[in-house]
Amino acid sequence: MSGSRTKTGILGLEVYFPNTYVDQRDLEIYDGVRKGKYTIGLGQKKMAFCGDREDINSICLTACNNLMEKYNIPFSKIGRLEVGTETIIDKSKSVKSTLMSLFEAHGNYDIEGVDSTNACYGGTAAVFNSVAWLNSPECDGRYAIVVTGDIAVYEAGPARPTGGAGAVAILLGPNAPIVMEQGTRSSFFSNCYDFFKPNLESEYPVVDGHLSNRIYLKALDHCYAGYRRKCLMKLGKQVNTDNMDYILFHAPYTKLVQKSVGRLLYNDFKTSQSSSRWAKFQEFKGVDEVESLTDRKLGKAFTKASKPIFKKKTELALEGSQNIGNSYTASLWFGLASTIANATKELPGKHLTMFSFGSGCTATMFGFNVVGSVEHIAEKLNFHERLNNRVAVHPSQFTQTLLEREQTYGKCGIDMKSGLQTLSKGTFHLSKVDRLGRRFYGVTSTEVDFSEILSPSVSTTRIPVPIRPPISSKL
Amino acid sequence: MSGSRTKTGILGLEVYFPNTYVDQRDLEIYDGVRKGKYTIGLGQKKMAFCGDREDINSICLTACNNLMEKYNIPFSKIGRLEVGTETIIDKSKSVKSTLMSLFEAHGNYDIEGVDSTNACYGGTAAVFNSVAWLNSPECDGRYAIVVTGDIAVYEAGPARPTGGAGAVAILLGPNAPIVMEQGTRSSFFSNCYDFFKPNLESEYPVVDGHLSNRIYLKALDHCYAGYRRKCLMKLGKQVNTDNMDYILFHAPYTKLVQKSVGRLLYNDFKTSQSSSRWAKFQEFKGVDEVESLTDRKLGKAFTKASKPIFKKKTELALEGSQNIGNSYTASLWFGLASTIANATKELPGKHLTMFSFGSGCTATMFGFNVVGSVEHIAEKLNFHERLNNRVAVHPSQFTQTLLEREQTYGKCGIDMKSGLQTLSKGTFHLSKVDRLGRRFYGVTSTEVDFSEILSPSVSTTRIPVPIRPPISSKL
Repeated sequence: MSGSRTKTGILGLEVYFPNTYVDQRDLEIYDGVRKGKYTIGLGQKKMAFCGDREDINSICLTACNNLMEKYNIPFSKIGRLEVGTETIIDKSKSVKSTLMSLFEAHGNYDIEGVDSTNACYGGTAAVFNSVAWLNSPECDGRYAIVVTGDIAVYEAGPARPTGGAGAVAILLGPNAPIVMEQGTRSSFFSNCYDFFKPNLESEYPVVDGHLSNRIYLKALDHCYAGYRRKCLMKLGKQVNTDNMDYILFHAPYTKLVQKSVGRLLYNDFKTSQSSSRWAKFQEFKGVDEVESLTDRKLGKAFTKASKPIFKKKTELALEGSQNIGNSYTASLWFGLASTIANATKELPGKHLTMFSFGSGCTATMFGFNVVGSVEHIAEKLNFHERLNNRVAVHPSQFTQTLLEREQTYGKCGIDMKSGLQTLSKGTFHLSKVDRLGRRFYGVTSTEVDFSEILSPSVSTTRIPVPIRPPISSKL
Repeated sequence: MSGSRTKTGILGLEVYFPNTYVDQRDLEIYDGVRKGKYTIGLGQKKMAFCGDREDINSICLTACNNLMEKYNIPFSKIGRLEVGTETIIDKSKSVKSTLMSLFEAHGNYDIEGVDSTNACYGGTAAVFNSVAWLNSPECDGRYAIVVTGDIAVYEAGPARPTGGAGAVAILLGPNAPIVMEQGTRSSFFSNCYDFFKPNLESEYPVVDGHLSNRIYLKALDHCYAGYRRKCLMKLGKQVNTDNMDYILFHAPYTKLVQKSVGRLLYNDFKTSQSSSRWAKFQEFKGVDEVESLTDRKLGKAFTKASKPIFKKKTELALEGSQNIGNSYTASLWFGLASTIANATKELPGKHLTMFSFGSGCTATMFGFNVVGSVEHIAEKLNFHERLNNRVAVHPSQFTQTLLEREQTYGKCGIDMKSGLQTLSKGTFHLSKVDRLGRRFYGVTSTEVDFSEILSPSVSTTRIPVPIRPPISSKL
């Protein structure tokens, strides 16, 4: 039973993101930085965040349960469930084990799979593992689900506007409209410290931004070369940015993805036999591989030249990450959700090139072929409406919320600080962490009510609100 | 390409455990507990431990590198490398990414796989994932390696003697002497808090021992029932404790494994059509399923009756766990190493039933068929000699070492407290954790030298040593 024969791939997709966000324009004003630093410099619009009533378990519970309900799948029909995350709140107990409460309520205990961990790559690893399971003799005809999500928060400072929060639940099985291409994927793994979380008692990572951008592009080079080689060998297909349909990236922030499309074009240039097409780039012919990663002139030239490609093949995939922020392991899969929402009718017959990256580092380029309609997925996602139905929160409220998360993070036997008013009906939330550290969850039963606890957004109303200094000045 | 056709399974096995251990008899004296509490009550002999010069990365580096060297595999021939562990020292960066340093030194960056996490089950999850990869179109003819290991330490108190430390590196590929049985494995996953690690800044878990034992046996019931059903359906084989060849368990401590063999027999009794054979157990016929898990009389009766099975089919697998202690994710695989060492000649043609368990909880029963000689594996393992070549350390030294681990655990920019004298030549060790939390490793280049830093064992020499009170009395 081979994957290509059974068309193993994605049957359904559900996303979850908090109802609250901070507008990056407001954050620029609040942080006192140059106008456009976050909105143009990073290319970001809105950043989702949540209070301490939500944790990695609760957002994955919400995404997974909503997937099951929207697709009306009997809970007995799931044979594998795997989680990708780097939001670790227990060093032993997996998020997957918490998700089991949804299934054991229906008598289903026989569900393989645990948590896959390596920075932003865990969701991709989980998808690969689940597809392999579906095509193996272990699969008894049931479906697999991957739930991938993270809560991305940074200490006050330049990295803070690159946070975000969200989860994606992916239903995998045979005869899928979005079929995983097999035998072509290509990886680059290397030992480095570009982004890591050695401070176990803190929710915040340690980040070497320059190294991270450099290794992201280096990994992209390697993966693209390997992917092209395998596509030629296995599919007889000469892949380049001209004939790719859609190109989706792990998206820490928009600007890096724009650079990445330029980088693909640079790779096309480097490997092209034609010299006429690339006449204006001849000055970059001799640039050393390592130098090319930080050569600003080279980067700018190819990013600029690749703009039409970016506009046509990649930008539509960034709606989620621009408006939610970085959701780490879920980022690439929010890219898929965005693409389905923005190219619903165009997708059938098209190919998706996916680039997954996790710091540390791990990266893979792989492909999906859309072989059927995705209209039912787009309808259930209802992506635009849900993104638009959120409420902007003043940056001071956002800052206060992160301060509260700091106070309760990793603590046992204390009360949560956030309310439940911003949670939509049906959202799972943390109701208690007892003195031993056991976590208990509830489901919000009332409709969302923003009025009581949220200050209006600066950019939308300009009503004066109590401004607190950013946390950074207190530390 | 199906796994059964290509005989996908275990081609090689390498283990690592520290050179230092504390004798459980000495620990009984030192802790002032009843004689036999640890040695008979738990069934344990020796407990391996390490200082703060070793961490999860270093022990996995050692095991993986030794596997590569002993089996003389070119580093380019590995296409997948996955880690199972619950010893989390960085919430984002995987152990796998650190292991990449071994391979990138040889120019191999294209190696899939990350870390699998759920308590003691991660190694098993990694093996399942790797076998599925080997049988998938993604495998390009290269091998897979799973490295599974943990450093198990407990705060002073009744759980402390159930610690241990070790890692196992498993080479997987086609045409293996130990072939993974496919299509029969059966799992039990459930959401519970029996053993977990919510205190992120501490190396110690929170344990509900009674719940953990109960859920272990309940999971065993479910997995055994599912495994028997699938073996009957797929292989036409009526499985019971009579016709199993060897039965290997995740082994937190010996006594629980003895009870587990009894539990399998109880399941045979419950499902047997024959009444004559089970005449003396008739009083247990009507015991409720939940009650049966804690019914001491029932447990004792079946544990006693199963002794011949335990002696013949299971005890040989416990040499590692009795003499090293619990190595969490590696425990079941130390069971395999022990079995290979103790039944080298007998194994070909035999079947191994494996029961993997991780708190939280996750459990699977699965099988291996030994179809070829394992003499070369046994020879390279050199298991008995390596176990015997270790040095017993006085419990006060062990206690002091754990105190030192507490002081440096999770800290950045401080000096390690342990020396390198107890490390064998070729052992990887932590040389520095810089102020950002980046970890740097070295390889011991000198021969082991115990003489300087170790006090002799109480039970072997009885030389008076400075006795410190156990930590528990200080807390």
